Amino acid sequence: MRAVILAAGEGSRIRSHFKEPKPLINLLGLSLLERSILTLRECGIIDFVIVTGYAEKEIMASLGDGSKYKVHITYLHNPEWRKGNGTSAAAFQKISLPQEKFILTMADHVYNLETVKAFVQAAASISHEEILLAADKRLDKVWDLPEATKIQSEGQKAIKLGKTLSVYNAVDCGLFVGTEALLQALAEAANRQQYNLTDAVNILAEEGKVKLFSVAADWVDADDLASLRQAEKILLKSALPGKDGLISRTINRKFSLPATKVLSRTAITPNQVTLISFLAALAAAACFALQQPLLGGLLAQISSIIDGIDGEIARLKFLKSNYGSLFDAILDRYADFFIIIGMAWSWFAKAGSLAVLFVSAAALTGMPMSMLLKEKYHSLTGKVYLPWQDDGLLELLPANRDGRLFIIMLGGVLNLIPATLVILAVVTHLQAVGRLIKLRKLL
Amino acid sequence: MRAVILAAGEGSRIRSHFKEPKPLINLLGLSLLERSILTLRECGIIDFVIVTGYAEKEIMASLGDGSKYKVHITYLHNPEWRKGNGTSAAAFQKISLPQEKFILTMADHVYNLETVKAFVQAAASISHEEILLAADKRLDKVWDLPEATKIQSEGQKAIKLGKTLSVYNAVDCGLFVGTEALLQALAEAANRQQYNLTDAVNILAEEGKVKLFSVAADWVDADDLASLRQAEKILLKSALPGKDGLISRTINRKFSLPATKVLSRTAITPNQVTLISFLAALAAAACFALQQPLLGGLLAQISSIIDGIDGEIARLKFLKSNYGSLFDAILDRYADFFIIIGMAWSWFAKAGSLAVLFVSAAALTGMPMSMLLKEKYHSLTGKVYLPWQDDGLLELLPANRDGRLFIIMLGGVLNLIPATLVILAVVTHLQAVGRLIKLRKLL
Repeated sequence: MRAVILAAGEGSRIRSHFKEPKPLINLLGLSLLERSILTLRECGIIDFVIVTGYAEKEIMASLGDGSKYKVHITYLHNPEWRKGNGTSAAAFQKISLPQEKFILTMADHVYNLETVKAFVQAAASISHEEILLAADKRLDKVWDLPEATKIQSEGQKAIKLGKTLSVYNAVDCGLFVGTEALLQALAEAANRQQYNLTDAVNILAEEGKVKLFSVAADWVDADDLASLRQAEKILLKSALPGKDGLISRTINRKFSLPATKVLSRTAITPNQVTLISFLAALAAAACFALQQPLLGGLLAQISSIIDGIDGEIARLKFLKSNYGSLFDAILDRYADFFIIIGMAWSWFAKAGSLAVLFVSAAALTGMPMSMLLKEKYHSLTGKVYLPWQDDGLLELLPANRDGRLFIIMLGGVLNLIPATLVILAVVTHLQAVGRLIKLRKLL
Repeated sequence: MRAVILAAGEGSRIRSHFKEPKPLINLLGLSLLERSILTLRECGIIDFVIVTGYAEKEIMASLGDGSKYKVHITYLHNPEWRKGNGTSAAAFQKISLPQEKFILTMADHVYNLETVKAFVQAAASISHEEILLAADKRLDKVWDLPEATKIQSEGQKAIKLGKTLSVYNAVDCGLFVGTEALLQALAEAANRQQYNLTDAVNILAEEGKVKLFSVAADWVDADDLASLRQAEKILLKSALPGKDGLISRTINRKFSLPATKVLSRTAITPNQVTLISFLAALAAAACFALQQPLLGGLLAQISSIIDGIDGEIARLKFLKSNYGSLFDAILDRYADFFIIIGMAWSWFAKAGSLAVLFVSAAALTGMPMSMLLKEKYHSLTGKVYLPWQDDGLLELLPANRDGRLFIIMLGGVLNLIPATLVILAVVTHLQAVGRLIKLRKLL
């Protein structure tokens, strides 16, 4: 399936604030247009048609033929773009194929990736006589409702669309699965001197041919400064992973997200961030070894926070990779090991007893058990082990990485190294044994 | 697809050696008939038709309705079984459905599971006019060639079959995909007073309707004592996993397979064996701690050998389970940890220095790295990490479990604890870092 992205407009409401044309405005490290392309690429689309009007040359210079995004881009220039976005959509008619279904979207709309994935999959559900339109029925959640195109709908079909409808129960999200029917309606609307996409959609709606796809996550039409800020918020929220522990959720993300917001605009890669997190952990280990537990504890927590940033940047900038995930997982294990060894060293220097050896060994062996069990579970079942879902009461043990590093931080700050090592040993092994018992029933 | 298993014959060549009828002879913990059923169940077949003749009651009493194997068994009695196995195959005609394809096999034939899986999948490749016959073209590998039914073939089609053919290039393995064509040919042969399955197959072969499926692994028609022993050999060989390390291959399996041969006949479960292997490792750890390195080293190697038996029994008796695999993986990690801690303790008792702490910590942290990397690789890619295929030169490091426990055995026997811990630390971490670098290109 091809995707047609309308990037012809002038963006008059924000033009004065930016030197670049609206589709090229940078949002957390990617231009709006790049983000549209990369979002759709994650949904399996690799052929793009970009309809240009205003600032055609800048757009073409910025994106090129798409090879740097591993997609193929065809440009279509629409000299009539000032008349309305319907003329831009209609431009695709020149190169459309018989019975072609295509995704149609706007360069300045920002969506959650999961929403777009589900929408693209739903394309198969419509006939060549119909179109599919993403619609948000959560009216209280729609950003800038007055500016939105409203929809009066019945069931999953649109009856009427318009900016000024008085009766409506949904909002047009600007994301379509187009068919020949849409291109015909666009031509018909143009014959009536109506040049907005909504005009054509209204023709189809009258005939009951506009199916709606309900959007359940936030999105935004980024056409002014406030909505651009809202888009940033939505994107940062969607950069969170689905499996955060308590400390991650309540503490770490409060620091990592603002850092990601800044760092995403730089060229730093997720793997570089992983390495910095590892170096912070090494520094923590050294501080413990050098009898600086306060600094050691704080550095451990900082490493834990930075450990969240690599994934956030990777998701935000479409830089996720299997190697990145492996690199992060293995460096995390080494970071854990070094911190424990640093603590053990500091304790041993004060009391060189057999107890140090046993307790440190117990803590060291406990550290990788959480990952071992989760990964083995994943490779056996193909399913991700989600602590907040699968752990039950075991979730109360602070034995996942965010919890462990938090304990280390507290231990350092309070200068209670032996107790910290004992606690780590107990919680990690309790979790391992608990999961082993629990999975006996689940597997 | 249903499977029809012919279990009507008397087994006259071995009847005097066993009190049970031939299909119920126990081979490594399962009767021949159970093994046929469980092998086909692994290929997705759950509906079985068993054609009985001799010893009908014993067979029905032994298998019941199949629910204990999670399959459904229908019994068909063939009063004419003495005439020939064609009458038993023809008995299925009574309950066969229009255009039904079915697997037809003999209760006393033993096959490799992978062979049967591939054969069952190939069933889709024949039409309702044809039949598919598993044939072994590796004449030098066929067990008891004089007794086998030979095939003269051209390409993948049989021309003529018979025990006494002078010109032949394949052997009938007794495994068929049957169709209505086969049932018709059986009726036609019976009209000619020919009552062997081969007679019916010959009718179809003349018409070019017998397609051959080439078998590439050993199998056996177990109809005398020597062939039963051969069947055991084949089964034990197929109980080996595909990913053995050097020490496993060259040393451990020499001991574990004979043990499995004995243990498979008992009721011991794979998880119980896993536990015994773990207890042997705990005993090894205790011996090291109590300054008995020779015993410790030997027990470690014994634990390593026992660690192979659980999987062998599981594969041999169709007892593989996800939980068993997890239980084994996690107990192995704990076994490793305890052994290292035992060694560290013994060293510390003699020289309570910081070096003990560091070296033991390094060895302890290295032990789980091999599994961590392999499991993460698996969960990321869906592919199994095969050290002998993916490790390249890293395979030379004795850092997989069989190699690690062998080093521990040597260290104990030679009473070189500190050196052993240093070597373990070096090889395990070298392997981890090496794999991390290697996978950068592969992922």
